[in-house]
Amino acid sequence: MTTLHLLTATRVLSDIRAGKTSPIAYLDSCLARIASREPLVHAFTQFDPDLVRRRARHAPPGPLHGIPFAVKDVLDTADQPSEYGSPIWDGHRPFADAASVAWARAAGAVLMGKTVTTEFATRKPGATANPAGLSHTPGGSSSGSAAAVADCMVPLATGTQTLGSIVRPAAFCGVVGYKPTYNLIPRKGVWNDADTLDTVGVFARSVPDAALFVAAMLDFRALMVPDRPAVPRVGLCRTFQWEHASPDMQAALANAGRHLQAAGASVEDVALPPRYADLLAAQTCVAKWEIAHTLADEYLRNGTGLRPPLYERCSEGYKIDPADYQRALATGRQCRQMLPDAFGHCDVLLAPGAPGEAPEGLEWTGDPLFNQIWTFLHVPCVAVRGGRGGHGLPLGLQVIGRLDDDSRTLEAAHWIQLALDERG
Amino acid sequence: MTTLHLLTATRVLSDIRAGKTSPIAYLDSCLARIASREPLVHAFTQFDPDLVRRRARHAPPGPLHGIPFAVKDVLDTADQPSEYGSPIWDGHRPFADAASVAWARAAGAVLMGKTVTTEFATRKPGATANPAGLSHTPGGSSSGSAAAVADCMVPLATGTQTLGSIVRPAAFCGVVGYKPTYNLIPRKGVWNDADTLDTVGVFARSVPDAALFVAAMLDFRALMVPDRPAVPRVGLCRTFQWEHASPDMQAALANAGRHLQAAGASVEDVALPPRYADLLAAQTCVAKWEIAHTLADEYLRNGTGLRPPLYERCSEGYKIDPADYQRALATGRQCRQMLPDAFGHCDVLLAPGAPGEAPEGLEWTGDPLFNQIWTFLHVPCVAVRGGRGGHGLPLGLQVIGRLDDDSRTLEAAHWIQLALDERG
Repeated sequence: MTTLHLLTATRVLSDIRAGKTSPIAYLDSCLARIASREPLVHAFTQFDPDLVRRRARHAPPGPLHGIPFAVKDVLDTADQPSEYGSPIWDGHRPFADAASVAWARAAGAVLMGKTVTTEFATRKPGATANPAGLSHTPGGSSSGSAAAVADCMVPLATGTQTLGSIVRPAAFCGVVGYKPTYNLIPRKGVWNDADTLDTVGVFARSVPDAALFVAAMLDFRALMVPDRPAVPRVGLCRTFQWEHASPDMQAALANAGRHLQAAGASVEDVALPPRYADLLAAQTCVAKWEIAHTLADEYLRNGTGLRPPLYERCSEGYKIDPADYQRALATGRQCRQMLPDAFGHCDVLLAPGAPGEAPEGLEWTGDPLFNQIWTFLHVPCVAVRGGRGGHGLPLGLQVIGRLDDDSRTLEAAHWIQLALDERG
Repeated sequence: MTTLHLLTATRVLSDIRAGKTSPIAYLDSCLARIASREPLVHAFTQFDPDLVRRRARHAPPGPLHGIPFAVKDVLDTADQPSEYGSPIWDGHRPFADAASVAWARAAGAVLMGKTVTTEFATRKPGATANPAGLSHTPGGSSSGSAAAVADCMVPLATGTQTLGSIVRPAAFCGVVGYKPTYNLIPRKGVWNDADTLDTVGVFARSVPDAALFVAAMLDFRALMVPDRPAVPRVGLCRTFQWEHASPDMQAALANAGRHLQAAGASVEDVALPPRYADLLAAQTCVAKWEIAHTLADEYLRNGTGLRPPLYERCSEGYKIDPADYQRALATGRQCRQMLPDAFGHCDVLLAPGAPGEAPEGLEWTGDPLFNQIWTFLHVPCVAVRGGRGGHGLPLGLQVIGRLDDDSRTLEAAHWIQLALDERG
């Protein structure tokens, strides 16, 4: 049994170019990893090794040639069902690939399968376990994608974030999660939950891998991070949710700040504008209104197919006064306009990626409250590993950038991850 | 043969309540109208009178009980194919209704059928003719919806606008077109063309009908216009595209201004902020980038199914530097922030809805350049009838409101349409 599957995409592509390995050897190692670990991790909803090998034989040349990737089951795939985590859509076979899937394939990547999502990317989890601690949630809603990458079944996977569904599972599983600026990755063919919030992003085990994946998908080379990233100006941001961070998470952020400063970064405390105190409630209102109104067909024709908590949540969403929804949208717009004040002269902010370690049990995917405001602000976020907590599980921080400033955000996240990893 | 089909929804609902007519009599009249006129107008891609009658028998009670509506064929319907104007999707049967369709049905409305769209709501027209002049284009891309409403086949129809696909066909056909604030009507189940721009809206033959349709769909009663609308403060807005307006359109706007002032409105000339001069080019860049990246599956797997001009347009879109796309997005954001300056103390702006009358011929749907900047700004727009041009065809103006200020915009449009209609 090889350990090739442990390599990042960036590394294996370099080894392939150097003649040290081959795409098929890497794929075989990943397939073997899935065969041995999937019975414990339950990352996939659709996985067919024969189909994967057929795809690999027909993968075109490109910057990701032969690299396997997994896709959250809220994104459409033309050659494998998309069920959106709901029995209502059982066996549904889309006619077309989601745009991001089509572009990844066109870049040479090989679809490994579809990964577990919560019900319509909302709350009710699937069976996925956290590879870092199998009795703990991997987070959600992109549960399977985070776990598959963390467990080295694939180096790359796609996910979506409406509340905190990329950064939180990345933080819980100890991988890199990159939620780009809103709508940078086209949403065509992605389950629509809450249009103002839904953002397509990726998981990887290194920042250069995450950047390469999206750069290849969009032919957006400026996203790729340099080998020697520039030293960033970092704002430590406790956010208005600080009291909800566990003591070990609070310590992890403070320690990271001290360490990054020691490594040469300019680090300062950043207080968000007072108006931002309203963002969490406003985001919650927008999410509730939009999810309820979006799930119209399911609620009206297939209500019994919705799990009772989601049915109930939709019913609540319909009761929200549209004027309150519009006020909440306005809060988001105003706070987006104030982003330059929030960042000051910092390149990026560093904040908790989740309240702490992954909670025990698989029935709850954890609280997204450290992610919701950034999703609403549409800014790029990169989850990085920030050490381990009291139970030995990963603690994830997030590097937050300005709107459309994804290149600099990824570069800063790369520098920060390298510096934090060096602590050993 | 009755003339019931000539009535607006608001009027027929009032007549039904008064016991003067019945939903089935109205539906029969609309069906008879379609039978006699569809061979000339070609508004529908999917129309099955037996299916319509079955739907009518099962229509639930609600504010639109028994009122027929048509749906542009870029919106999904669970009981009739959705082909998006492209042979690639020939015969495609969606599993679910688009959210707006589901909500309209839940409000009691009866789906009459699917209406002709250009290819993926872009340029290549279908066979639809303009009821106001059968050798003229009805405009696009919501060609069939505008024509079906103008020809009194249905009182209500849905459409989408990415460049100018609601306001322009409404203007050309002489009906009311209402493009709400971006994302007010959920986009779930709507063909995704350009995520930053795509907006769902409606066609009707009066402003109260358009307002009622959306109010019923969203259970958003504040959208409904009062019988006696308040007198608005109107800004006459020539826009930076003024030189592209025909002489009769230029005269129509000036005459409307004089007439509204005589009718009691405060009317003043409004010059848009200089930064807005960049909006048209920026919107064009955003549309090109997003349409190309969204059409990934079609381009990559079914390229021969795209008409050559669209294939070519996608190829051009892929060549746009992502940094240019991001700069164009930033221009849109900045101009949205400047909307308060653009409106000054006016409630609404009044501007050309199209360059002039509908062009002759069915091979070109006309120029959206009077619509693109407003779509990009995400503001509500209501096309109203502004008289007739040199060829006796309709000239449409548009009433433009502030973000999320749909209620006031509709009320002002109602006042303006009443005042302009009174000229006789």
